Amino acid sequence: MGTDRSHPAFSFHVGGKIGTDITKPVTTREDLSLAYTPGVGLVSEEIASDPSAVWEYTGRGNAVAIVTDGSAVLGLGDLGPEAAMPVMEGKAVLFKHFAGVDAYPICLDVHEPDEIIAVVKALAPTFGGINLEDISAPRCFEVEGRLSDELDIPVFHDDQHGTAIVTQAALFNAVKLLDRRLEDLSVTIMGIGAAGVAIAKLLMYLGVHDIVGVDRTGSIYKGRKQNMNGQKRWFANRTNPKGITGGIDDALADRDLFIGVSGPGLVKPEWIENMNPESIVFAMANPVPEIMPEEIPSNVAVMATGRSDYPNQINNVLAFPGVFRGLLDVRARRVDNDMKVAAARAIAEAIPDTDLTPEYVIPSVFDDQVVPAVAEAVMSVARQKGLARL
Amino acid sequence: MGTDRSHPAFSFHVGGKIGTDITKPVTTREDLSLAYTPGVGLVSEEIASDPSAVWEYTGRGNAVAIVTDGSAVLGLGDLGPEAAMPVMEGKAVLFKHFAGVDAYPICLDVHEPDEIIAVVKALAPTFGGINLEDISAPRCFEVEGRLSDELDIPVFHDDQHGTAIVTQAALFNAVKLLDRRLEDLSVTIMGIGAAGVAIAKLLMYLGVHDIVGVDRTGSIYKGRKQNMNGQKRWFANRTNPKGITGGIDDALADRDLFIGVSGPGLVKPEWIENMNPESIVFAMANPVPEIMPEEIPSNVAVMATGRSDYPNQINNVLAFPGVFRGLLDVRARRVDNDMKVAAARAIAEAIPDTDLTPEYVIPSVFDDQVVPAVAEAVMSVARQKGLARL
Repeated sequence: MGTDRSHPAFSFHVGGKIGTDITKPVTTREDLSLAYTPGVGLVSEEIASDPSAVWEYTGRGNAVAIVTDGSAVLGLGDLGPEAAMPVMEGKAVLFKHFAGVDAYPICLDVHEPDEIIAVVKALAPTFGGINLEDISAPRCFEVEGRLSDELDIPVFHDDQHGTAIVTQAALFNAVKLLDRRLEDLSVTIMGIGAAGVAIAKLLMYLGVHDIVGVDRTGSIYKGRKQNMNGQKRWFANRTNPKGITGGIDDALADRDLFIGVSGPGLVKPEWIENMNPESIVFAMANPVPEIMPEEIPSNVAVMATGRSDYPNQINNVLAFPGVFRGLLDVRARRVDNDMKVAAARAIAEAIPDTDLTPEYVIPSVFDDQVVPAVAEAVMSVARQKGLARL
Repeated sequence: MGTDRSHPAFSFHVGGKIGTDITKPVTTREDLSLAYTPGVGLVSEEIASDPSAVWEYTGRGNAVAIVTDGSAVLGLGDLGPEAAMPVMEGKAVLFKHFAGVDAYPICLDVHEPDEIIAVVKALAPTFGGINLEDISAPRCFEVEGRLSDELDIPVFHDDQHGTAIVTQAALFNAVKLLDRRLEDLSVTIMGIGAAGVAIAKLLMYLGVHDIVGVDRTGSIYKGRKQNMNGQKRWFANRTNPKGITGGIDDALADRDLFIGVSGPGLVKPEWIENMNPESIVFAMANPVPEIMPEEIPSNVAVMATGRSDYPNQINNVLAFPGVFRGLLDVRARRVDNDMKVAAARAIAEAIPDTDLTPEYVIPSVFDDQVVPAVAEAVMSVARQKGLARL
């Protein structure tokens, strides 16, 4: 059963990648009498009498639950909670490595939004924030929306907002480099899942009006009947002010920005060639983009992908570690659009203006200025908006 | 608000006691490409095609959820999930320190058995075992019973079975030392909560017939009407074959063994004096026992408490780390009575017969033979009984 396990990923994963770490000394009987009974009883009683003490005397203030039901694991689909575990552990590794956040994989064997919401609400006292991960659309929207409303800790669906933040960061630098105004751009987004919706929402929040969504059938417009779902109806009702119809090629003609969060090789060079001069192409399907950088025609001024082996890698790891570092450090009650925009600007500004080039609009994932800058930006907005406990 | 925070337990607890630890190298881009995308995708796909691979390639096989609703925190009562957090973190510290188990505090904001059960079932794919903790009786019985039946990983309520195992270990050595037969003992158990019920069940499983339960009202007998509940009805129906009635003093007269899991100072020396010659007294209320060792009359041959500052400390930390080490190491599907008995015998046998004295019937919590011996005993029974995956 199963595939060839000779790839080094298998030997790397034996025993998993994440465990617990004791953060206080427990070598003597005296230590143990503080860490556990009787000393611990004093701390428990104090939290019972002053609930805010939980943030000071437990790990809650640095703890994030990475919650999935395994229904949309990477680009691989509905693999289930067990198969999601290596990805959630990987995410926990990134949280710890890049931002010192204690993130705990929580892979759930329930799939109805009501059930996922009930479980996460039950778990909430243990954590300072919730990172939803790899929950398929459209269920992810209801799960995130209701949890954000009902909990007083931040709830962040990384597939939506992490992607939107980093995309926006690259875009801030691209328009700066090209001396364009963001709100003037005509935008075509291909892939109407969690990421496509979140990217569109953040663009609209920033004043972009001319957005059209595209799936494999073509443009999404008001009145389209075939191959629709909740997200696509959202696109049909809120975007495409010009009423563009037709195929992907039509939706790309005379546009300024293409954002791909769909599948491998779906876009032809001649369609891109019909985009406007000095156009921007973010082809982020992983691991194979909608169009490879080698195939890009000369009217494209800036190109980005999700890959580490080409320039301009749009990778969520630029956002979520710093976003949660900031949220936790002020004990934020929620995360909002202004924090996401501030995070995107902080990522963008990690590159000095004078260093910007078409091949360098987004910092490296190893740029160690990014996490503290993002955290600082998020904290600042949380405090300004009264959403911080500290 | 709150109490004086000058006790060293508070400074010890700042920031909590437990976090995550990355167990694989993630220093290079190559490492990250194995720990996360794209390498992790191969492992996820493999688990999707062969679910048993989750045990090999993730941390599940070493991960235990410490689940509470905070309804019975230590002896302090219903303090709620936030106030339970320091205790659960302390337990996680003990799991890691004594047995290398990665145990994760999960403090739940739900209290109905159905709700707790639903949440734990949802979480189960993430863990190799469930340690229930500080859930008040009688809800703990339903929660543990149904989860044990419905999950294929072991579910162990430490307040019940951890206490029962260590009590039984001390008792194995006490009867050996006194040259008595366990099944001949007449037993009075004071305190009819989770621990009292579990201790009685394990004694009965080992052939002890003459058990009587006692609460502050007195003996529990068939037909008693006042101050009853589910556990007490269980005692009334299954124990007290002689139909003992009356107060605590009557329930202690002419008995061989007193087991106290109740409250401080509830037992008078003259009642103990009316017990049989060479009687055994385990007064385990914490931190103040039912009767202090100094007050014990001369008819008592062996005395134990839950305290570290007197001989014979009956402490759960002798059981749960080794029990879960063993369960995890064979990927057990459940834990049963035979494993609990084997664990108790292994703890008892950590003291050579020739070293047994009335003041040394239970090994020290720092005896580093105990965890591996308990783990080995549990693994052996799990394999014999076909309850092991490995």
